[in-house]
Formats: sequence, structure tokens, C-alpha cells
Amino acid sequence: MPDYESRARAALPQSVYDFVAGGSGTEQTLTHNRAAFDAITLTPRVLAATAEPTLSSTVLGTHCELPIAVAPMAYQRLLHPQGELLLAQAAAKVGIPYIISTLSSTPLEQIAETTPSWFQLYWLRDRAVVESLVERAVEAGCSALVVTVDVPIMGRRQRDVRNGFALPADVRPENLVDKVIEAHEVVPGLSAVAAHTASVFDPAISWRDVVWLRERCPIPLVVKGILDPRDARRAVEAGADGVVVSNHGGRQFDGAVASIDALGPVVDAVGNDCTVLLDSGVRSGLDVLKALALGASGVLLGRPLLWALAVEAADEALAELRQELRDAMLLAGCADLAAVRELTVGRTAWPISS
Amino acid sequence: MPDYESRARAALPQSVYDFVAGGSGTEQTLTHNRAAFDAITLTPRVLAATAEPTLSSTVLGTHCELPIAVAPMAYQRLLHPQGELLLAQAAAKVGIPYIISTLSSTPLEQIAETTPSWFQLYWLRDRAVVESLVERAVEAGCSALVVTVDVPIMGRRQRDVRNGFALPADVRPENLVDKVIEAHEVVPGLSAVAAHTASVFDPAISWRDVVWLRERCPIPLVVKGILDPRDARRAVEAGADGVVVSNHGGRQFDGAVASIDALGPVVDAVGNDCTVLLDSGVRSGLDVLKALALGASGVLLGRPLLWALAVEAADEALAELRQELRDAMLLAGCADLAAVRELTVGRTAWPISS
Amino acid sequence: MPDYESRARAALPQSVYDFVAGGSGTEQTLTHNRAAFDAITLTPRVLAATAEPTLSSTVLGTHCELPIAVAPMAYQRLLHPQGELLLAQAAAKVGIPYIISTLSSTPLEQIAETTPSWFQLYWLRDRAVVESLVERAVEAGCSALVVTVDVPIMGRRQRDVRNGFALPADVRPENLVDKVIEAHEVVPGLSAVAAHTASVFDPAISWRDVVWLRERCPIPLVVKGILDPRDARRAVEAGADGVVVSNHGGRQFDGAVASIDALGPVVDAVGNDCTVLLDSGVRSGLDVLKALALGASGVLLGRPLLWALAVEAADEALAELRQELRDAMLLAGCADLAAVRELTVGRTAWPISS
Amino acid sequence: MPDYESRARAALPQSVYDFVAGGSGTEQTLTHNRAAFDAITLTPRVLAATAEPTLSSTVLGTHCELPIAVAPMAYQRLLHPQGELLLAQAAAKVGIPYIISTLSSTPLEQIAETTPSWFQLYWLRDRAVVESLVERAVEAGCSALVVTVDVPIMGRRQRDVRNGFALPADVRPENLVDKVIEAHEVVPGLSAVAAHTASVFDPAISWRDVVWLRERCPIPLVVKGILDPRDARRAVEAGADGVVVSNHGGRQFDGAVASIDALGPVVDAVGNDCTVLLDSGVRSGLDVLKALALGASGVLLGRPLLWALAVEAADEALAELRQELRDAMLLAGCADLAAVRELTVGRTAWPISS
Repeated sequence: MPDYESRARAALPQSVYDFVAGGSGTEQTLTHNRAAFDAITLTPRVLAATAEPTLSSTVLGTHCELPIAVAPMAYQRLLHPQGELLLAQAAAKVGIPYIISTLSSTPLEQIAETTPSWFQLYWLRDRAVVESLVERAVEAGCSALVVTVDVPIMGRRQRDVRNGFALPADVRPENLVDKVIEAHEVVPGLSAVAAHTASVFDPAISWRDVVWLRERCPIPLVVKGILDPRDARRAVEAGADGVVVSNHGGRQFDGAVASIDALGPVVDAVGNDCTVLLDSGVRSGLDVLKALALGASGVLLGRPLLWALAVEAADEALAELRQELRDAMLLAGCADLAAVRELTVGRTAWPISS
Repeated sequence: MPDYESRARAALPQSVYDFVAGGSGTEQTLTHNRAAFDAITLTPRVLAATAEPTLSSTVLGTHCELPIAVAPMAYQRLLHPQGELLLAQAAAKVGIPYIISTLSSTPLEQIAETTPSWFQLYWLRDRAVVESLVERAVEAGCSALVVTVDVPIMGRRQRDVRNGFALPADVRPENLVDKVIEAHEVVPGLSAVAAHTASVFDPAISWRDVVWLRERCPIPLVVKGILDPRDARRAVEAGADGVVVSNHGGRQFDGAVASIDALGPVVDAVGNDCTVLLDSGVRSGLDVLKALALGASGVLLGRPLLWALAVEAADEALAELRQELRDAMLLAGCADLAAVRELTVGRTAWPISS
Repeated sequence: MPDYESRARAALPQSVYDFVAGGSGTEQTLTHNRAAFDAITLTPRVLAATAEPTLSSTVLGTHCELPIAVAPMAYQRLLHPQGELLLAQAAAKVGIPYIISTLSSTPLEQIAETTPSWFQLYWLRDRAVVESLVERAVEAGCSALVVTVDVPIMGRRQRDVRNGFALPADVRPENLVDKVIEAHEVVPGLSAVAAHTASVFDPAISWRDVVWLRERCPIPLVVKGILDPRDARRAVEAGADGVVVSNHGGRQFDGAVASIDALGPVVDAVGNDCTVLLDSGVRSGLDVLKALALGASGVLLGRPLLWALAVEAADEALAELRQELRDAMLLAGCADLAAVRELTVGRTAWPISS
Repeated sequence: MPDYESRARAALPQSVYDFVAGGSGTEQTLTHNRAAFDAITLTPRVLAATAEPTLSSTVLGTHCELPIAVAPMAYQRLLHPQGELLLAQAAAKVGIPYIISTLSSTPLEQIAETTPSWFQLYWLRDRAVVESLVERAVEAGCSALVVTVDVPIMGRRQRDVRNGFALPADVRPENLVDKVIEAHEVVPGLSAVAAHTASVFDPAISWRDVVWLRERCPIPLVVKGILDPRDARRAVEAGADGVVVSNHGGRQFDGAVASIDALGPVVDAVGNDCTVLLDSGVRSGLDVLKALALGASGVLLGRPLLWALAVEAADEALAELRQELRDAMLLAGCADLAAVRELTVGRTAWPISS
């Protein structure tokens, strides 16, 4: 894809750029996510007998023109005044699900009107709010619920601490608006966003809570933030329809295995018992191919779309991504996504910079 | 070999240099092809009891003074006014086959008169043209047919897009001259050459088409662009006499396994059922030795010869390559090519820059 | 942790900085200790159902609020006038053992009054002194004896030789004060400290001496400086209660395996037969987690605390370390230290700079 | 060891520095020899119960104070007017064998008078000269014959070609003085030294010739330049008493496996059937330890001694090397060379720069 990031960086306040670009700790995992993708090679096939491969599939009951969803990302109005709505429209245009964040800066109902959506749930201390969010999402027509389980606390994002990052007055977690604490003040050693997280998120949830949620959730349930195959099995046992293999884009546990390296063992562990998606580190159509070859049914795409959003190029970015994926499939001799899964995956002993 | 590339770079227009030097996408595969060669070590033998090793062999029925053929490369008149003819003469002088490209900028018959040749076939949309090309090649005395199967579409070559690269008016695909579309106009997002490819190449061929070709081809048939051992087996089943393990010099599927790393599994898969050749990344006599040690019967050599052609040094380059190979065989204790195949191959955990 | 090292470096004489920071030989092992830590990844778990993980445990009979002890380090008054006492107070405050060095620049009894301590023993040529030191340590209330076995001679520390490093007049090995030779003069090719070591340490001790010590030691006995699993087994057979897997912070045998890479085989060799601790290369709460995941019951922390001591920030450093460990455990889904040991450990094929 | 190389470089003509420092081809093997040593780690032992390890052993019937011999190196008078004699005296002083080169610039008899020596044989085209050299060496009291088998031709040393390197008038192969061709003229593409080699060396010797030599050689026979275990077995079958695992310091077959990486398989192949020595890449006492841990009975040391010779520091260099080896053995807990062979060897996935 074109380099939206440097264009966005030039256009955004440094602290907003850092909030999106940064990872936790020493950003080892952030760096490793990319190096791990770059170390993967694929062995293309030939003579697929197709001029136009099939990119579409049904993921968790949702028809997807591409095996991609827009990752749930907080506060998209930081990037553009129209924020979530603009990005959701782009998703609708290319035909992929938009995952609404609990921390969206636009009410979930407005977004869900714009495009076929899934809803991402952070587990709040107040159980009634959790129930209400699930009900609102179902009511608004969201067709899957994605519960994030890798944020018992927010990872220490040194850039945000250094920048004293706080949300501007007009960007708020609109879905929690009656619950919102003031997220604007800086707490020493924590960014304002991290302070807010600490005050409203429940750090002590368990698999029992997932079972509780499962019982209250009439739509497909996805557990996001799984890296260990044992947890993937537990998600299946708790009734999840899917898992997202993710290290939260290198923003939570610094030192974590690269998301793409964790994928294979999870796929092996769950087999056909649930759908496996991946995020963290996806930057191109080729990366999508790599994730699918390693067994994912699809990927969530995050930062690249925020950079595109910031420069009003989300439509273009998704069209370009579609083109990249289509070309990569043709060049790899894959007539459809099932063929991608049959590609042989290799790993070099050193990362190949891209 | 001497550094013809930097001399050629100084002599050529930047856009022509880039057209030859470049790869597709982020040029990961282009880079990886070289790093993979550099990571290979050989264990030399001693006391071979020879003062002058035997470098010649018969490949696909053609006597070759060196286990090398000139790779099929389009539009060689971009590099030098005499283009294909000059390089073919150099091949004749050193005694190796010259593979005529479908997209040669000199008619195939003129080249085939100059030197023992093989013909490379791109699969065009018009089946009658395909048949006519095969007939012309056989008629002209070509002794093998090399069908390229890794270009359903042309890889996105960012350098060409950036340079708005188009062929100059006097360089044309002479073998297709009544079929030629105007390859000179720039299509947005595609180079003119890529646009031409899209219009005349058939992206949807299959193994059935190879069988069809096999029936019409009275000379040895080679399938070029194989990386997966499963495809190598299918080539054998389709009646091919040989395969070329190749990622098209890093110009097609970016993200592909390095050609030299794909070689061993293909050799294991086909055994003695067909001849295995290799291209992509060969730069020296030592690289030839590495490919042979990994089981290839020979290599195709591309870019280095174009650089030499550009500075009127193709004769010298091939003589130097012969010397490199001869010296390397002596130093590795190999009296002939069969002995090279017995060398032990190692791989370092990091590339050794050469 | 904050970068105390660069602050300390600015505050200290270069020769003191080098004495602490340096390693032996070409500092390969010093470098490798860190690279090996950085190459380790962990696979975090989720949904640990805890808001506040348990960081405490009992190590060798000592209750430890963190699975950390202050490593035995000589001459801490080089860093700060109050030296050992200031660092021991910080250890007491956070609730971890302080290991008093044989070469402390404050009498062991004074330190042991300040905080729950262990005593580290260098094996001196004069056996009576050894016995007396053990008796004094036990008398002073030390609750474990850590005998260092990797200093038959001192490693060649090129920085100290280059700097002509000698102790200032007011910093002495106070525990040996009637035994002390003048450690202030420079011997060619050796630093003054190395010369002192050569004159008073016994280079020729054996496992029989450990057995001898075991018989005279009424408190838990730990053998420090083990890297080979065969030596770990011998320590068990000699009656040791624990071993410290250590290459002495890269200060002794240059060329040694990284301490963290030697840990797993030692843990496998001793099973539950003794307690395994680790030092050399630990710099953060994440590193502690990695060591525990590989089977250590705890780590010794060295240089980072000396840097903090130099800038009067030892309290802060240990509080910060506690926070890092607590956050890392929460983010890795570990409710207690036993859960850390169940984490899956990976290694990248290249170090990830942190 | 101290950095004699940079001191020598400053003192020597660039072309002489390059002649010694350089390797063949792109110097991949030269580079790799060092990187491979640097990637090796050892796991030290403890409590060896010795204050002074035993460094001496008997190698091929020769008592060696250190497990080291001076490698055979041509034309040492290039480095210092007294050349071979000065270096041989240093070897005598420290108690290690000096291996006289066929191409010594001092007559072999003069050197053999100076110190206990072995003689290195290049196989010349004139069989009578070969016989005469062997007879002279035995007559002069050499206690082993080292026949070099990895120079059928000289590797292309680009530095020498570039420098037009030729021997100065007063430096000649004194052992061949009635046979000498003019080694002073430059042949295009070859250095004068390479041209000389081509004219007088026999490129076509075989294992039969080794058997022939064995019959005429009343002293231990060593085959130098073995990397493949199959060749090591053939050396045993030909009656050799020893082999030197060597890639000629990266000066012959460029692309060869690092000598230290080839050692283990050779040791495994020959078992106790012959003595295994190593050269190529040894720079320190630690490197000696690594080679011994991998099964060598000793090493040949080359370039570092030439650099020391150039600055009249050969005595000092060997004393320093002795000290390094002694300290390394103490720190690795090895009372003698047999203990070194029991050390566990590891390899990092990346080289650790030293």
C-alpha cells in the first residue's frame, strides 16, 4: 500500500501520531510483529486456471468481499473529524465488516447504520453497562460480538506518558458517555487514557465471565487477544465461535510472541472447532496471504487504515489492498481462499526488510 | 565477475537500469534471492586428480560447454542496439544455449541463425499465435521449448510505475509484431510493459494447456517458474522434460521463497523423472556450483549478462564466468559436474555479504 | 526501568563506571547475556481472574516479596558514600533479600542489621578466614550462604587494566580488613583489584571443599556460578540447597553461554532437588518473568541497582521493578509465580533490540 | 591478544599487508571463519581443583607446551628482515612446533636448526624435487611432514591482483632456489605469486600420490586442507597420522564452510584413527579452547603471528597467547586439555562481534 503513515504523520499532532503508532514498554513486540511477517516466505503455485480469483468468503456468518475486517480502534475522531463514520463508509464500499470499538468516539448506533458491523466489547467494572452494551450492539444490528481479553490493564505506552497524552475535549468514548470519567487529566506515570482504562475496565475477569457473556449473546461471539493454544481451547469450551490471535498490535504485553508466529499453533489446537482470525502487524495484501496460508480465516487491519483515514484516503487504501490481495493470489496461483491455505510457508533465519 | 552492473548503470538511462534491476512489490524476493545464495556454504573436496575439470554436459539433448544457458529476457535492444544478436553471439562463442524470449526485440529466426537456441514461450490469449510461435521456433531450429508459467499477470514493479517506463519507439516485441498493441502509453498504476502484458497474455492457463502444448511440441519441453514440488510433479505428469526452478528474478510474486532454497525439495520430488534447472540470483561461478551441488543440472543466467551486454562485454563476461566455474571446481576438488553434485551443502544462520 | 545507567555514568568517575559496567575479555559474554534475553519471547495467557497478582514467595526459607534478591556486589561505596547500607535499606523496604558480598566495603554485621540478608562467600586461601566469615555471617543472622565458585582467578577486565583502576583509599574490603593486602597499587596487565583477588582467593578449590563447607554451614547453602547441568547435579550431591545459574555478569569466562540460555538445562537436570536462581543480564521486570518462565525460582539483580544507588534512586528503582513485574504478570495473565512458570517460551532467530 | 594487526598494518607496505590479510574471491570464507568462531559459546565448568592447568601435550610425537603450532606461511621475510628465523625462535621459546613452509624465504635447514620443526610440503610438478624436499626435511630433523592438498591452483586473491603484488627481489622461495621461476613479473589477472604457483605446483595430484608419499616419509604424515569427513577417512586409509581441518585461512575456495564448523564432523569421522588439528580463524586463547572443545588436538596459528613478527613482538604474542589459554582454562574449570574436550559447545543464531 502507499505510504499513508508518513503522510499522516506530517498531518497529525505528534502526540496523536504517537498514540496510534506506539507500542508498550520498549516496543519489542511492536518491532517483532513486523520482523516476523517479513521473515515469512511463501511458495507460490502455478497454473491456477483463473483470471480473477475469488476473494470473498463468509466469516462468522458475515459475507466478506475480502478476508479482512476493520480492527476495533478507539477514538477514531482523533484522526479525522468524521472519524468512525468515514472509515465505516469505506468498509461498506469495499464490502468488509467494520468492528465498532467500545471506545468509539461516535455512538455505536450511528456507525452500525452506516455499514455492516461487529461490536467490540471491553469488559467494564459495571456489569450492567456490559449487558447494556451487548444489547445495544445487537439492537443496532451488529452481527458478531468481539470481546477483548488482553487488557486487564493498559500496557505502559512510554510515548503517551512522555507526551502527557490526553484526549482533546471533543473526542470522548461516546458509548460510555454517562459513565465517562474525565479522561483528560494526566496521572503521573500513566497517560490520561491509561488512567481512564484503569478506572472503568474490570481487570479480574475470567473464563466464567465469558460463559456468562455467551449466554447473553445471541450473535456469534469472538474472543480477541488469544496467543496461547491452551487459551484458544478454553475459548472453544466457553462457547466462542471464533478467536482473534492478537497481541493488540504490540500495545499490551511487551515481550509477547509475534502474533503471526502464534497463529499456527492456535490453528492446530482448535481445528474446525472455531474460526481463527489474526491481527497485529498486517500491512499489505501479501501479509493477508501469509496469515491465510498459516490458517487464519481472515485478518483485522488496524493502523494502516487509521493513517489512511487521517489523510482522507480510506476508500483508496481499501481498494488498493483489494488489488494487492487479488494480484498476490493470482501470482501465487490461488483461485480462491481455500487454495491460499494450501500454500507452503517458510521462514528465513533473518528478517528481510520490506 | 567484474562489476558490470555499475558500469552499465552509468551508461544506461535510469529507467532502463531500473527496468532490468528492479523486482516486484517491496523487492523482498529480489533481496532474498541473493541473501539465500550468500548463506550457502560448500564443503570442498581435495585431490581430484585433475588439472582441468570437465565443465561440459548434455542438457535436454543440447551439448553445453558450461552448465549454463542465457535466461530468456525481453527487449534486449534496450541495453544495446544489437541487443539479442550480440548476446547470442557471445553464447555461441562460449558454447551455451541462448534462450530466445517471446518478447525479444529481434525476430526469433534471426537469433536462432546466430547460435544454438531454445525458445521461451509466453502464453498469449490468442491460441493461434501460440501455435504459430511454437512452429516458428521449431522451424528455426530451436532445440527446446521453455514455457513460462509464473506470469498470469505481471508483478507490480514499483520502479517502472514510478518512472512511467515505456519502451522506446524502436524497441518492440518483434515476434508479435502483427499482434502488438501499443506498449508505449502509460496506464495509471501500471507501466506500459505491464499493460501490454495484461492485454496479450492469457492469465488463466492450466495444466491441461501444458498437456495440449506437449502434444504439439516435437522438441524437449521445459516448464519455467516452478517453486513448489507439487507443481514439479505435475509438470512431470504433463510430460515435461524439464522444469526451471525460478521466481522470475524476484519480478513476479514478491514474498516468494528464494529460488535456491526451493531447489532441493523440487529435486527430491522429481528425482530422475525430469531435468531441473534454476534461475534467480545467480551472479558468479560459485553460485553455479552451489546450484549444481543442490541438484540442478544447470542454471539460467540473466541480469549479469544484460549488464555486460550494455557495456559490450558479453564475451568477456562469459569467458570470465567460465574461468570462475573452472577455478571453483578445481578448488572444490571436482573433476566434473557429477562430482559437484556430491558436495556437501551447508547454510549459515545469517547471510554472509559478498 | 528508567535509564539509571546513563545518569550514573554522568555522575561517576569513568573508571568506576567502567569497573561496574565492564566485562572480561572482548565482552562477548557481556553482550550475549543481553542479546539472549532479548531473543526470548513469551506467550501470554488471558483471563487470570485477578486484579492483583501475588508476587511473593519463599525462597530458600526466606520470605521474598518479589522473586528477586540483590546480587552480591563488591565495594558498593564506590558508587555512593553510604554504599551497601543504602542499597540494603532499599531491599528491606521492598521486602527482598540483600546478599552481602565478601568484598563489601561495609562490615557484614552492619549490613545484616539493616535488612534480612544472605552472605556471599569467596573462597580465600586461608581456610581459617573462610570459617570465620561463615561463623560471622550466621551470627549476624544471615539466612543463606551463597558460595561463589566461578572466580578461581579474576577474568581479565580490559577496561580496568586500561584505566589502571584501583580502589580509592577509603573503600576497602571491610570484612577482610585484618587480611587485606594493599589493593591500591597497579600490577602490570592486572588491575589492582585483580591483583588483590589473585593474592587472597584460593584458585584450586574443589567439590570436596563444598562438602566441607556444607558440614560447617547451618543455613541453606547456595552454589553460585553454575552453567553446566553436570555441575548443578554435583552441587546437589554436595548437599547444596540451591544453585545460581550465572556467568558472573560476563565478568569471568568470556565466551561463556548466556546465563539465561544455560538456565533451562540446569532446571531440567536438578528438578526439585534444589532451588535454581539466575543472574547475569536481568534488567527489567520482563526479564524476571522470562527467567521464571524458564524455571528459575528467582533472580539476582546487580548492575541496575548499582546505577540506581549511584544516583540515590535505589528505593525508586525497586519500586519501579515491582511495578514492572506486577504489570507484566497481569498482562501475561499470571495470578501468581507458579502461573509464570507455565508460560510458553519462544526464541527468535535474531535478537530484538530493546 | 593485543591488536598487532593494526600496528603491523601501519608499519607494512599496503600490498604486503593485503597479501597476508586477504582472502580469495569476495572473501566470504575469510569473513565467515571469524563469524563462525564468534558464534560459538562454551559452557564452563567449576571447581577444577587446580591452580595451574596443564597446557602441554604430545602431538604427533612432538612435545608441545601449548596445543598450538606455528602455521606454515610463505615468505615471512616480507614481514621482517629476519623472517622465519625470528618467528621460529619465538616458537622455540614458548615450546611449540614451527612448521616450515615449502615457500619459506629462509632455507629450511637454517630454520630447523633454530627450533623443533615440522615441514610443510607443496606438491611440485617435478616429482624429484618433492622427494628431495622430503629428504632434506627429514635430514634437517623435522619431526612431521604436513602435505598441503588444498592448492591445486591458487585461489584468486583480488587484493593481490589489484595491487599487482610481486615479491621484492630479496625475498625468494629459498628451498626451491634452483627451481625458481621469476616470481616478480605480473601476469594479467593473476598476481606474480599466483603465476609462480601455477607454473611449479602440480594441480592434478590424487590420493595415490599421498600413498606414494607415505611410503617415502619416515616421520608422521599430516594431510592439511581437509574439510569433508569423507576426505578425512581417505587420509586415514592412505596412512596419514593426522589431518589439518583448514580452508587455508579463506585464501583458497571462497564459499567454503568455516573451518571451525567443519571440525566436528571430521572428528566424528576419524575417531581415534588419526590426530585432528585445525587452522583458519584462530585469533585468541579462547579460540584455541573452542577448537579443542570441538575435538581438535591442537591448532595452527597463522596471521596473528605474522602481524606480531612485523612489529618484532612474536615472543610477546606467544607469551600472551599462553596466558590467555591458561586463564581461559582456569576460568572454564579445566585442569588439562582432556577436560577442555569435555566442555559443552553451543552456537548462537547470530555472530557475537568480538
